[in-house]
This record gives sequence, C-alpha cells and structure tokens, in this order.
Amino acid sequence: MNFKMVANLLGRILCVEALFLLPAVAVSLYFGEADAARALAVSCVITAGAGGLMLIPRPKKKNFYAREGFIVVALAWIVISLFGALPFYISREIPRFIDCLFETISGFTTTGASILTDIEAMSKGLLYWRSFTHWLGGMGVLVFLLAIAPSSKGSGQNVFLLRAESPGPEVDKLVPRTHNSAQILYSIYIGMTFLEMVFLRLGGMPLFDTVTVTFGTAGTGGFAIRSSSVAEYSPYLQNVVTIFMILFSINFNLYFLILGRRFRQALKNEELWMYLGLLGGSILLIAQNTRSFYASFGESVHHAAFQAASIMTTTGFATVDFNLWPEFSKCILLLLMVAGACAGSTGGGIKVSRLLLLFKSMHAELRRMISPRLVRPIRMDGKPVGSDTLRGIYLYMSAYFTVTAVSLLFVSLDNFGLETTISSVFACLNNIGPGFGITGPMGNYAPFSSLTKLILCADMLIGRLEILPILLLFVPSVWKRT
Amino acid sequence: MNFKMVANLLGRILCVEALFLLPAVAVSLYFGEADAARALAVSCVITAGAGGLMLIPRPKKKNFYAREGFIVVALAWIVISLFGALPFYISREIPRFIDCLFETISGFTTTGASILTDIEAMSKGLLYWRSFTHWLGGMGVLVFLLAIAPSSKGSGQNVFLLRAESPGPEVDKLVPRTHNSAQILYSIYIGMTFLEMVFLRLGGMPLFDTVTVTFGTAGTGGFAIRSSSVAEYSPYLQNVVTIFMILFSINFNLYFLILGRRFRQALKNEELWMYLGLLGGSILLIAQNTRSFYASFGESVHHAAFQAASIMTTTGFATVDFNLWPEFSKCILLLLMVAGACAGSTGGGIKVSRLLLLFKSMHAELRRMISPRLVRPIRMDGKPVGSDTLRGIYLYMSAYFTVTAVSLLFVSLDNFGLETTISSVFACLNNIGPGFGITGPMGNYAPFSSLTKLILCADMLIGRLEILPILLLFVPSVWKRT
Repeated sequence: MNFKMVANLLGRILCVEALFLLPAVAVSLYFGEADAARALAVSCVITAGAGGLMLIPRPKKKNFYAREGFIVVALAWIVISLFGALPFYISREIPRFIDCLFETISGFTTTGASILTDIEAMSKGLLYWRSFTHWLGGMGVLVFLLAIAPSSKGSGQNVFLLRAESPGPEVDKLVPRTHNSAQILYSIYIGMTFLEMVFLRLGGMPLFDTVTVTFGTAGTGGFAIRSSSVAEYSPYLQNVVTIFMILFSINFNLYFLILGRRFRQALKNEELWMYLGLLGGSILLIAQNTRSFYASFGESVHHAAFQAASIMTTTGFATVDFNLWPEFSKCILLLLMVAGACAGSTGGGIKVSRLLLLFKSMHAELRRMISPRLVRPIRMDGKPVGSDTLRGIYLYMSAYFTVTAVSLLFVSLDNFGLETTISSVFACLNNIGPGFGITGPMGNYAPFSSLTKLILCADMLIGRLEILPILLLFVPSVWKRT
Repeated sequence: MNFKMVANLLGRILCVEALFLLPAVAVSLYFGEADAARALAVSCVITAGAGGLMLIPRPKKKNFYAREGFIVVALAWIVISLFGALPFYISREIPRFIDCLFETISGFTTTGASILTDIEAMSKGLLYWRSFTHWLGGMGVLVFLLAIAPSSKGSGQNVFLLRAESPGPEVDKLVPRTHNSAQILYSIYIGMTFLEMVFLRLGGMPLFDTVTVTFGTAGTGGFAIRSSSVAEYSPYLQNVVTIFMILFSINFNLYFLILGRRFRQALKNEELWMYLGLLGGSILLIAQNTRSFYASFGESVHHAAFQAASIMTTTGFATVDFNLWPEFSKCILLLLMVAGACAGSTGGGIKVSRLLLLFKSMHAELRRMISPRLVRPIRMDGKPVGSDTLRGIYLYMSAYFTVTAVSLLFVSLDNFGLETTISSVFACLNNIGPGFGITGPMGNYAPFSSLTKLILCADMLIGRLEILPILLLFVPSVWKRT
C-alpha cells in the first residue's frame, strides 16, 4: 500500500469538500440564518485544514494499482462523510453525532434514508448542504476529482479510481484518457441537472425547492425538504421528477453514444430494454393492484409510475404512502429495490446488467447440461463476456447476500418486526431510502438504536461502492507496505 | 428422451407405492377404521393398476443419461404425489383435492407444512400414511427402487437416478455399484429409524406416536399427529427427537465411513463442523435472547436447541410457539431455514456444503484480486473442487433466488403480510414446514388460496429435488426423442 499517495488523494478530496461547503454558507447568509452560516463556515475551515495537512507529505513512489484504487475510494467516502456531518453537529440542528453521520452517509451514498422527524424545522443552509451531498455522491467524488485534476501524463492511477467508484459489473473509460472520461460524465450530469431545473421552474416550483429536488433526483438520492416528500407538488412537477429519475438511472455511456450520434449502438443496449421492461411491467401490475385506492385508473397509473420509478431508480421520493398499499404491490417494490437501476448511472441496487448476466449464465449452464459438447460463450450487447466479469458477479452476489444476512441479524435486535427489518436493510443496502413499516415513506429511521444506525451506515457505503472496496478494508494483506 | 424407459421406471415406482399402501390398510383395520381402510385399499388398487399399465410397453433401447435421470426423478415425484393423495380424497377426510395434493407433496418432500386444522380428527390409518410419506421421501423413492431392483449388469442408468434424487453439490456412489450404494444408504436409514423408535419407547411414548414421530424425524419431515406438534411429550422424549433430527440431517456418507472404522476420514468433513458450529451458535444466541420466556436458562436452552435443530435440519417439529419469540430469534431461524442441513442427508435447504464452497470461492476471488498471479484451487475435505461443481452451485443459487422472487409475488396476492409471505415461501422451498405469522408452528396453510397452494406445492418439489429436475421439465429440447 502506497500510504503517502493515499493520504495525498484524501487531502485533495477534503479540499474539494471544503470548497463545496462555501455555496451552503452563501445560502445560509441569503436566508439570514446566522447560526447555520457559522456552523457551515467553521466546518469548511476544519475540513480545509485537515485536507491541507494531509497534502504535506509528498508521495515519492507512483506505484498505484487496483488495490490502492479500492482503498482510496473506501477511505474517501468514510472521510467525506465524517467531515460532511460536521455542519449538522456544530449547528446543533441534529443533536447526536451518530444521527449527523447517518444523515450525511445517507446523503453521499444517495440513499435518502433520514433520521429527521421534523424536516421543516431545519435551516435552509443545512437543507441545501444535505441535498447537495446527493448530487456529489451520485456521479462520485473521485470522478469529480479526476475531472478537475490537471491532466498529467503517466497518471495511470486514475483508471483504478474511476473503476473502483463507478457502479456496474464492467466499468471502462469512454475515451482513452480517464481525465477526459470523467469530464464528459460530469458535463452530461451537469447538463441534465440544469435541464431538470428548467422543467421544474416552468411548472412553477419555488427556486429553493427546484434546486434541492433536482439534487435529489440527479443523484437518485431522495432527500426532500418537506415531510410529505414530493406529495404536495402538482402532477406535472411529479411527472417531471418521474422522467428525470429514470433518465438519471440509465447508463451514462448511452448519452455519450447519443451525443456522438451513434444511435444504433445506444439502442442495442440490452440492459436498457430489460430495465424499461421490468419497470413498465411493474407499473402496470401496481396500477391494477392499487386501482381501488384512487379516483381513476389514470391516477393509479400516475402514482404507480412515480413510486415504481422512485424505488427502481433507487431515488426514494414518494407521492403517496405506499406503505398502505396491498402486499402484492409492496412485494413488487421490494423486488425492484433489490434489482436496482442500470450500471454506470447514479442509481444503486444490484443493477439490471448483473441480473441479466446471471440469467444468461443460467441459460448457458442449462444448455451445457443438456448438450455438454456445445459450449458457446455468453454475449452481451453483441460482445462476448469474459469469465473474469462473471466471476466478479458471483463474488458480488455472494458478498451481497452475506452482508444482507449479517445486517438482518443486527437490525432485528431492535424488534420492530420482520417487515421493517427486511425492508430497512434492503432500502439502505440498495441506496433507496424509505422501506416499509416504521421506515415507510412517511416514517423515518430515528427510532432505531445507535448500533442499528451504524450497521445501516455501513450498508449504505457497502451498497454505493458495490461491496468490494469496503470488504478489502478488512483484508490484512491489503495493508502491506509496498 | 427414451420415453419407454421413462414410463417403465414410473410404472415400477407406482407398484412400490401401492405396496407401501398395504401397511396403512392394516393400521386402519387394526384401529377398526372401515372407511379409511376402504379408501386406502381402493387407492392401492388404482395405483397398482396404473403402475402395471405403464410396465406393458417394453423399452428396447437402453440409452439413459443424466437428462433422462433428471426427468424420471421429476416425473416420479409428481406421479407419486398425485397417487399418494388419493386416500385423503377418496376417504373425504380432506375434502378438496388441492389440499390432499398439498398435504401429500408436503409429506413426500419432507416439508411437513399442513393444511389440516384439526389433526386429531383424522383416522389413524391416514395419519400413518401421511407420516410414512416423510420416511419414504427422506431417503428418496428412486434410491429405494435402486436398492430393491435386481443388480443387473450394465444398468448404467442407475447412477444418474441416484445423482438426480440425492441432495448436495456433489453426489457420488459409496461403492462401485449403484445398487449396493443404495442398499447401504437404506440399511443405515432403517437402522437409525429402528434406534430412534427404541429410544422413544424407552421414554414411554405410545407405539403409534413412536412410529409416526420417528417417520417425521427420520425424513426430517415434521408432520405430527397432534395440533400441538410435539409440545406435549416429556423433555426426555423431546431431547431424543432433537438428537435424532440432527443425526438424520448429517451426510450419510459419514456413517458409512464410521461403519468402516474410517473415523479420521469421517471427522475431516468440513461441512459437519461448520454445520454443528452454526447450529451451536444459534442455540446459544436464541437461548440468551429468549431467556425471559422460560423459568430457567436450562429450559430456554432446551427449547432453543429443539427449535433451532428442528428448523436447521428442516424438520419443523415444535415444542413451543416460536412465532411469539423476539424478532432476533425469529431472524436467526429464518436464516437457518435458508442455510438448511448437510448434503447427502434427509434434510433440505441450500445445504451447508454449498454455503461453505461459496465462502471459499469468495475468499479465493478476493485473494486473486489482491495478488492476481497466485492462483490456488479451492479445496474441500482436502480434495480440490472442480470448476464444474462451482458452476453448478452458481446455477443452483441463481435459480434458487429466481424461484424465491417469483413465489413471493404469487403468494403476496393473498395479502397476509410480508412476514407470513416470506417465511411461508422459505418454509416450503427449503422443506421445513412451519413459518411465521399465520403459518407459524401453531398455525397452518389452510387459509391460503388454491393458487398459492399450487405455487407452494411447486416450491416444495423444487426444493426437495434441488431445482434442476423441475427446471429441465420446462426446457423444450429435453423432450426430443432420441
């Protein structure tokens, strides 16, 4: 492990975080919130100071590989969460530090699970910071660092950082240079963020709501600034959010292909069609199942579409309390939670491409069983899939269910019932936010014990970083000095 | 597909089933139950007749491979369940055929899930038959056929039948001849069955109870002849059942090794130690968690041991209503349900050896990720594990969770709550029996709709036969004439 290099990167990340705290200070000052402004400013100074200190030891060796990439990503996310929680704690708007940490990890990991019992009582400055963590966490903080860093030659470490932080079974650069790939990703991200703001403003949404709801949508996070989530906005505004939740949960490579006018290649994406198929089917089934809850079939389709999209994109906004829906609809939502969004998007969960590859490999194994001499490789989007990718998926799935089992045991100690326990673990591990029972869309995570909150914090990080980086933190041989 | 050979084997199996109905007729006559005796006798004649008819077309070709093995096993279990349900239906003791079928499949698959609301009202003859299905299903009906069939030379099909019906990731013969292997397995099985009966009789259990409870233990089934399951028996009798549930859920190969005085080889079995470790740990955790429910710590250990063993061995007997336990204990039981027993035993579930191999492969993948040049094969019990076995486990796990997801959706239509839905699907798919909620140890499966019962019937068969045979029934190319 190249410790100086790791420290250097963490230092740079803290400086970036300090920089992003400045707009929150401005928001606080604009709304005349002196206490919040002070807390944010102090946090900014502490974060910048800590970051600056870590930049002092100059790394001499440049050896930096996949292992270092995973460790930097894991540590970076822990560090930004610890410092990102400071404004809530210093301002005393959230009294207990574990709650501040939970809320911040939930923000950065774009989960959107909240311990707040009275959101409207929070200051605007902190609500802005809380929602902004979604936006930064969505595309990734290290990807941001790569995008703004000077494009130095021979910085071979960059691709390992990009791969370790980006979600999906196979991550690769869009263009030969990692630096440029990161810039393209963030340009598309900023462009789409701007577009959603325009559409929301056109529907008459207040400016502060527009900014925070857009941050929540873009990162597929789900923090709202009202206890009722987005239920109070007009159907037009809700539909805009539905559409943008889906747009942000699709592989960004497709937008890159579309921008390059490679439409045919973009439409050949198998994950996209399976994703839209699963989502569309779920919407129809839920709309039919909840038909009696609403005045018209149109209204039940409207709410089914919003909720199904909100869960499958792993955002977690709500227009209705789906905790009251019939069990069949809740069961569909639970399965959508696990399935998750597309690889290479801001969404979480197992990812549809992993499920697709699992089905393809099941099919191939069955075929091999019937005719052992006919061995054909598995193909995805027309290209053969390497055995490394498949083994990576099996590793991911095994670790995923192991983490689920261990988390269930810990959370069940709080004795809130299996429905709450199972849905809360899935809602955090897959970065969705609301579950069922006490953590339903109109509930929150405040009643849980500190131990449960810590476990769920770990689950959110494990889910966002797709297990491996966090898992490697606990392998002793990773820490050997090189 | 060699259809004549398949028909011939099914015919022989039905003749065996008819033969086994005769003792039930005798039991009915002994207890003076004329109606039940008549129903059982008529069923016996119908079954024998159908079996005889299927023996008429003489198979000419002897080609019989893995594919035929899987299909024969899948069809055999469906056919014996359909005919085995006749006594319940003809006697009108269970009025609806779907309920008769559910009870019979639950019996043969050694699940022990019941739709009976008043067990004590059933006739002794039918209760005997119901419990006997556990015993036959435990070791397998085709293994029985192999054991009694004349040892013809060149009957190469036998090993495919043995493999398709026996549980576990790697099934092989104990001795070179399949016929002799099956005989050894059934000899051990009969010997242990006899031993349990002796111990129960020594504790003063009535003869009829002794026979039926032993059948339920031996097959790790769990049908009791009282609504209170085994709660009314003395602690000594409950402890005998606890010990024999565990003994029957251990790989029978170990008994073969012990009989051959190969103790060292038997004790090297890694699955056994992981199994006993998981079980022991669960017992301690549950005993501690339920401490306040019972008069002494000894009593809570007694009940924790019985319930944990009952669930992990996939038997399903109960001495207390564990549905009332704290959620932590219920969560442990839920995870034990999924883990299941040892390969090559009469127990169900995923099997500890599969989980062990998954952990080993996770570990190997992580090691490969850190040091890509160091590739060491995975070993189990000192022997290297082939990539075929690992791919088989991945296929099994993918299919397992696919079946779980589809089943959850169907069962959730009944709207009994997620706790009931999830635990019922796991209780049937892993051949345990009781779940939580309405299907708890003091509840039953009667309230479910016919559709749900059909889905759960399929789950029980899929679970007992470890998915593949049932899955292959739906692959069109399997049915091509050869």
